[in-house]
Amino acid sequence: MAQSVTPRSEDYSRWYTDVVQMAELADYAPVKGCMVIRPYGYALWEAIRDGLDRRFKATGHQNAYFPLFIPESFIKKEAEHVEGFAPELAVVTHGGGKELAEALIVRPTSETIINSMYAKWIKSWRDLPVLINQWANVVRWEMRTRLFLRTTEFLWQEGHTAHATAEEAVAETLRMLDVYEDFCLKDAAIPVIKGRKSESEKFAGAVDSYTIEAMMGDRRALQSGTSHFLGQNFARAFGTQYLDQNNELQYVWQTSWGVSTRMVGAVVMVHGDDQGLILPPRLAPIQVAIVPIWRDGDEQTRVMEAAQGVYDELTAAGVRCKLDDREGMSPGFKFNDWEMRGVPLRVEIGPRDVQSGQVMFARRDVPGKAGKSSAAREGLSAQVREMLDTIQGNLLERARRFRDEHTFDVTTLAELSAAVEKGFARGYWCGDAACEERVKEETKATTRCIPFEQPGVTGRCAVCGGEAREVAIFGRAY
Amino acid sequence: MAQSVTPRSEDYSRWYTDVVQMAELADYAPVKGCMVIRPYGYALWEAIRDGLDRRFKATGHQNAYFPLFIPESFIKKEAEHVEGFAPELAVVTHGGGKELAEALIVRPTSETIINSMYAKWIKSWRDLPVLINQWANVVRWEMRTRLFLRTTEFLWQEGHTAHATAEEAVAETLRMLDVYEDFCLKDAAIPVIKGRKSESEKFAGAVDSYTIEAMMGDRRALQSGTSHFLGQNFARAFGTQYLDQNNELQYVWQTSWGVSTRMVGAVVMVHGDDQGLILPPRLAPIQVAIVPIWRDGDEQTRVMEAAQGVYDELTAAGVRCKLDDREGMSPGFKFNDWEMRGVPLRVEIGPRDVQSGQVMFARRDVPGKAGKSSAAREGLSAQVREMLDTIQGNLLERARRFRDEHTFDVTTLAELSAAVEKGFARGYWCGDAACEERVKEETKATTRCIPFEQPGVTGRCAVCGGEAREVAIFGRAY
Repeated sequence: MAQSVTPRSEDYSRWYTDVVQMAELADYAPVKGCMVIRPYGYALWEAIRDGLDRRFKATGHQNAYFPLFIPESFIKKEAEHVEGFAPELAVVTHGGGKELAEALIVRPTSETIINSMYAKWIKSWRDLPVLINQWANVVRWEMRTRLFLRTTEFLWQEGHTAHATAEEAVAETLRMLDVYEDFCLKDAAIPVIKGRKSESEKFAGAVDSYTIEAMMGDRRALQSGTSHFLGQNFARAFGTQYLDQNNELQYVWQTSWGVSTRMVGAVVMVHGDDQGLILPPRLAPIQVAIVPIWRDGDEQTRVMEAAQGVYDELTAAGVRCKLDDREGMSPGFKFNDWEMRGVPLRVEIGPRDVQSGQVMFARRDVPGKAGKSSAAREGLSAQVREMLDTIQGNLLERARRFRDEHTFDVTTLAELSAAVEKGFARGYWCGDAACEERVKEETKATTRCIPFEQPGVTGRCAVCGGEAREVAIFGRAY
Repeated sequence: MAQSVTPRSEDYSRWYTDVVQMAELADYAPVKGCMVIRPYGYALWEAIRDGLDRRFKATGHQNAYFPLFIPESFIKKEAEHVEGFAPELAVVTHGGGKELAEALIVRPTSETIINSMYAKWIKSWRDLPVLINQWANVVRWEMRTRLFLRTTEFLWQEGHTAHATAEEAVAETLRMLDVYEDFCLKDAAIPVIKGRKSESEKFAGAVDSYTIEAMMGDRRALQSGTSHFLGQNFARAFGTQYLDQNNELQYVWQTSWGVSTRMVGAVVMVHGDDQGLILPPRLAPIQVAIVPIWRDGDEQTRVMEAAQGVYDELTAAGVRCKLDDREGMSPGFKFNDWEMRGVPLRVEIGPRDVQSGQVMFARRDVPGKAGKSSAAREGLSAQVREMLDTIQGNLLERARRFRDEHTFDVTTLAELSAAVEKGFARGYWCGDAACEERVKEETKATTRCIPFEQPGVTGRCAVCGGEAREVAIFGRAY
């Protein structure tokens, strides 16, 4: 714990791995490609889960649970789906001591198994819409592990809805993208670009895929959530039909949407700095670290009593806090420790503070003296809450500024190439897959999305110069 | 939905399956042995999970997440463990399109993979105790599926703790058994018998296993939660050691404890009746169903306005309620529907109720007229809450009376045989596995536990007549 992380400015990739391991968010598992989510990281995931789950329920969704195992034949029923997922599957061939007649796939996503049930449950237009979400683990084989970002097994939620009309399903697809954006802005303090995925980047089996794209601290893109309009592709493959009001059989229109433990990686990468993690207060498992400071036993008694009082008051006010009463460690060591772990606000209490009826605040988002201020002990919890809101707002503002400062309008491939070295490139794209491919080959950047926000006029494709109706965001991605 | 369940009194087993399917708690999955937990059943599981999780956190535990896949070699490291679990394993042999060098086991329980991490994380006595819980899916191959009771995949929580001394680990084992009992009594309204498992019934790899045993409505036993003292068995197999205060390496002492989706089955089986489900208010996804009653449009307007007012007031008071505004269904149909689904309290509102400023209560736990009473509209939410508490208390009391009335003290094998036809037998047992085996062969009953509550004097074994120091509970079990 006395170690410090590799500075972010020195080596971003090592910094990330250091932070995740030293802050005890996660660790490598003995199984290749797998990770262990440690208590501090899991508490962060619980806060993400609760923030999303509350929004899902508020928009009329219910949770359910479908099996981990999917018959191999199911995966093969939707042609694009199997093509997309085949290389990533984990296969169970033996169960209960015997070889299975049909191999079982460990779910990489659940469209197929869920459609097999919807086909059974949905009978009439009265049964629609079906608005179900599932919190689950999924498996997609990975060789290069990056904790939270690329792991063979990860945790996520997957929403699966069925509707009577295409319009309703499209509206649901976009509604859930809005829900994701709302969560990112308000809870994770991460600004996102909402948009449509290109044909080559969309989900295997979808008609249209939508995404929220965020810029990480190294200016690379992270797809942070996706929402798919599936049309009737899976409904036709599984015979998911309903009797409409004219008593005619119709296929349902579907959506699916998901956010995963990748979001933990996004929070780390968007906000962290050279010292380590910086957690947005809304998601922080510990929002306030209280560090008592004393030199002798007499001071210790008085300071600890005051610190305990602060802890009790803040806890009663619903602030998640931790009183650092560890002995044999200097205050300076504790400061560094909580900073590395990204606790948004530190409250220091020394003998003089006790005497003068105040405490010292140290903001995690503003290093050094600039982030320190004194606060009256009287009415402390209101001041703490206000400060946490300020920090939350500042993190979002800072991330937005950073993203905007590193997003460049481009009109030529040369400009695009230069831009993606420094961040996102925003430029007209004719929509041709060949241009997209050329960008990828020459710059290692992909189309992140065709953003909803568009100039509204046509232009010239930055790659081929042909007519283009929309701008796209290009970037190197995780 | 117009169908009704097979009466419980007629065929308990069919009744159970009917209730689970018709109340839409769960359904059979296309994969043999697997189930789908539907939204209503999952909401019940969420209430169980939240009730337990709150208690785990209040006793100092943190959640974490360990991988689904366990290297085959890990499972084999603890001799009794592999022997116990080998016949139930699901095996992944292929991943990412290739045959794996070492097969992966889909976790049946996580002692092994968790110890591989604890061995890495735990270094000194300062790191102890480690108090971690995991919410996860596990797989144990089953051929005979019974929804919630026996399924190849099920959801559960598994606590895994490590301690410096055997005493601390034993104390933790028993503390968690108390936590389970507290949950069962206060939330699930299920009385349980706490006790020790016999040698033959204990967990594969444990030194001692403890259990909470409950009596179902057909007087069979259901093991509803277990807590194991693992001694140093897994610590030795995985080298989980710490430096003690004298700087000497010691193996840690461990516990594990779990409750699963079986608990949903227990709630169904303990409380339900001929009409269907009866849910304890603390766990019920819907605590109150509000059913408006009208004949014409004029009545409808006034009644619906009043019903909406009741809904708003109860919701604001934190009561989980549902306003049944479905058209084209008679009140009688709705009454039956909510009764079948086990909603604890029905609030009926008709035109005369609106006029006289009252509503009608119908308790689910007391059928017919005896369960009906009128309540003033004024101050309704307080009356609803009081009534829900009364129902909660009555369900527990009733289940306890039922269990006690069907528990018989026995002194001979003949008495024991007769008793387990009618419920639980409580009799002295010498502790010899041969006597236990004989009971099993002759009566199909097993030792459920050696209860903590003991007469305190020695007696004669009901089977062999030999000296016995303890009584055991015998019963036929799920």
